[in-house]
Amino acid sequence: MKKKQSKKTTKEKQESLIDILKGYGVQAYNDLDKGEFPKFSIPNRSISNIIYDKKLRQYILGSNTSLRSAKNTAQLRSFTQLLWLAFFANKLTKEKKSSTLRDVYYSSQAFAIDFEDQQESDNIIVDLEAVLSRPREDFYVFPEERSSIFGDLTIEYTIPGYEGKKMNLSDHPDGYAIGPSLTSADLVDTSAELVIAIEKGGLFTRFIEEKVDKKFKSIIINTGGQAPRSTRTLLKRLHEELSLPVVILTDGDVYGEHIAMVIKSGSANAAHLRELTVPDAKWVGVWATDIDKYKLPTIPMTESDIKRCYDLQKDPRYQEGIWKKELEVFLKIKRKAELEAFSKYGLTNITDKYLPKKLEEAKSL
Amino acid sequence: MKKKQSKKTTKEKQESLIDILKGYGVQAYNDLDKGEFPKFSIPNRSISNIIYDKKLRQYILGSNTSLRSAKNTAQLRSFTQLLWLAFFANKLTKEKKSSTLRDVYYSSQAFAIDFEDQQESDNIIVDLEAVLSRPREDFYVFPEERSSIFGDLTIEYTIPGYEGKKMNLSDHPDGYAIGPSLTSADLVDTSAELVIAIEKGGLFTRFIEEKVDKKFKSIIINTGGQAPRSTRTLLKRLHEELSLPVVILTDGDVYGEHIAMVIKSGSANAAHLRELTVPDAKWVGVWATDIDKYKLPTIPMTESDIKRCYDLQKDPRYQEGIWKKELEVFLKIKRKAELEAFSKYGLTNITDKYLPKKLEEAKSL
Repeated sequence: MKKKQSKKTTKEKQESLIDILKGYGVQAYNDLDKGEFPKFSIPNRSISNIIYDKKLRQYILGSNTSLRSAKNTAQLRSFTQLLWLAFFANKLTKEKKSSTLRDVYYSSQAFAIDFEDQQESDNIIVDLEAVLSRPREDFYVFPEERSSIFGDLTIEYTIPGYEGKKMNLSDHPDGYAIGPSLTSADLVDTSAELVIAIEKGGLFTRFIEEKVDKKFKSIIINTGGQAPRSTRTLLKRLHEELSLPVVILTDGDVYGEHIAMVIKSGSANAAHLRELTVPDAKWVGVWATDIDKYKLPTIPMTESDIKRCYDLQKDPRYQEGIWKKELEVFLKIKRKAELEAFSKYGLTNITDKYLPKKLEEAKSL
Repeated sequence: MKKKQSKKTTKEKQESLIDILKGYGVQAYNDLDKGEFPKFSIPNRSISNIIYDKKLRQYILGSNTSLRSAKNTAQLRSFTQLLWLAFFANKLTKEKKSSTLRDVYYSSQAFAIDFEDQQESDNIIVDLEAVLSRPREDFYVFPEERSSIFGDLTIEYTIPGYEGKKMNLSDHPDGYAIGPSLTSADLVDTSAELVIAIEKGGLFTRFIEEKVDKKFKSIIINTGGQAPRSTRTLLKRLHEELSLPVVILTDGDVYGEHIAMVIKSGSANAAHLRELTVPDAKWVGVWATDIDKYKLPTIPMTESDIKRCYDLQKDPRYQEGIWKKELEVFLKIKRKAELEAFSKYGLTNITDKYLPKKLEEAKSL
């Protein structure tokens, strides 16, 4: 059994977050005591300050920061919003109450904090992430979407009412929803040697039915299309804390390729975070080159598929390796194939033939 | 503890389905032996044959049937497709292999059965549902989407590898995904006296955090927007087999009202089925009239919201009671409110104040 590496526990992470928040509060009071205007220093999130870091293999923010001060009347509104949010984040974290972006927007109204619309409050939440260098899930703002997980993984809950309770995620073959309690749980141990993230619910179920968890000693995750943030966080934790390699299976089209890329290297608008990427994750299929190789039934690419390929060709992450090559092949063949296409050769063809071949290939990726 | 009523077990249901399918196979052979062309009698699914049944409180098919025969060259293609699908449904059910609409489409290619596209094969699948009077989930064609469930409910799996294993759905506070194994499980017992279906993942988590399952002796289901078919089937089974009342909470807008209606009375294109409706289910909120009553923050309705209201006013199911009244109020105030709007009064306002009031009100609905 793989035991977790000596990483910070969720409890330690929460305590350090509260310390940081407290620090900002103390600073604001000190400024006021000294007769100065309170302020925040915020990493600049504008496009000009977003750089692709080849070593980290993700987008990062450059060194530009800007000051948001109560002194500047043009900034007074957003300064107040940010200060209130820091207060509210502290409250959520201390009380361990989960919320969503939308909840925060409506909660602000209880405090007569003025947000024009949810867009404005979402933006301030990302500002606070940048100030704290912490994802919003750390201060209990969770996504609405729920993906799911299955496999021999024992977790220990940290949420109120469940603290210290352990759970093994291999008894319910439809999978366990990934929400706040799973994202914040400590990962205790596993016999798995691999994590397989798959794009579709139907295939997730097929993989469990065909015992992919046992045959390939794996934990299986249904991303349900683009992986929600909490799922990406969990993938990173499984990789870092339990040293498990992560492989990704998507439809054989440009959107599938990008689903894999986002799990691997995140997105430009989360350049201020490191918690949402798994740079070592491997996209193992369905590749454009698999379409011919495995004689898959195809669908013609749409105009929007083709445009998306050209757009991604400008992205620094698509300049080499399979990322570059597969985009080129998609543009050449102008056809795409879904994961279900393997069913042409029998429902278990994908788990019996394709998966083992691709996992073997993945070793040299 | 409520024990299940004496309903057919999943195993009995599957055996009877295989018997019916076998019957159609025998009939085709007999026809051929007698030198006759094999045929199917199919309930007519065209709009002219869809009637709203006030007693059943759902759409049903009228008595028109049509014959699909191998004799008619114009029908030979769809006859062959249907006969193949009956064969494939038998195979899936016997082998207990779950599939999806898309899987079936691709599987047909292994048998050189020609479908122009997935639309054509989806349509034949609905034809087979109509022929058998059984939902496709009974022959192992499941939806892609996964909603989730939480609460004191003990189930007994019937899927291979898990047969006879029992599971209580109250240990994982992010919820259990609702897929083939849960939909086909026997419902053994529960201490719950109520099922609460809620539209949003964030609120589902809130309800669990605030122990709504214990405080209101309830099983909580996250429909994730429009409830997937398997979730509607499960809601019906919870109602019928465990005699649990079902209440539905949605956003306070016309789409929310219709999410509740679909759980209650299905849709016109499933008029050939009875398994997807819970006619006694109650929509308890957020009503248009709640917006003023609870002083909720609102958003203006869009043109498409308004158009949708007018469309639904023509639907026979919206001609009386709250269904009619709330549509009228939406059109009058031209504003809508989300479930999260209650967060203005604190994150637990919805569970502490609103929910108990609405559950009390529901008794007289």
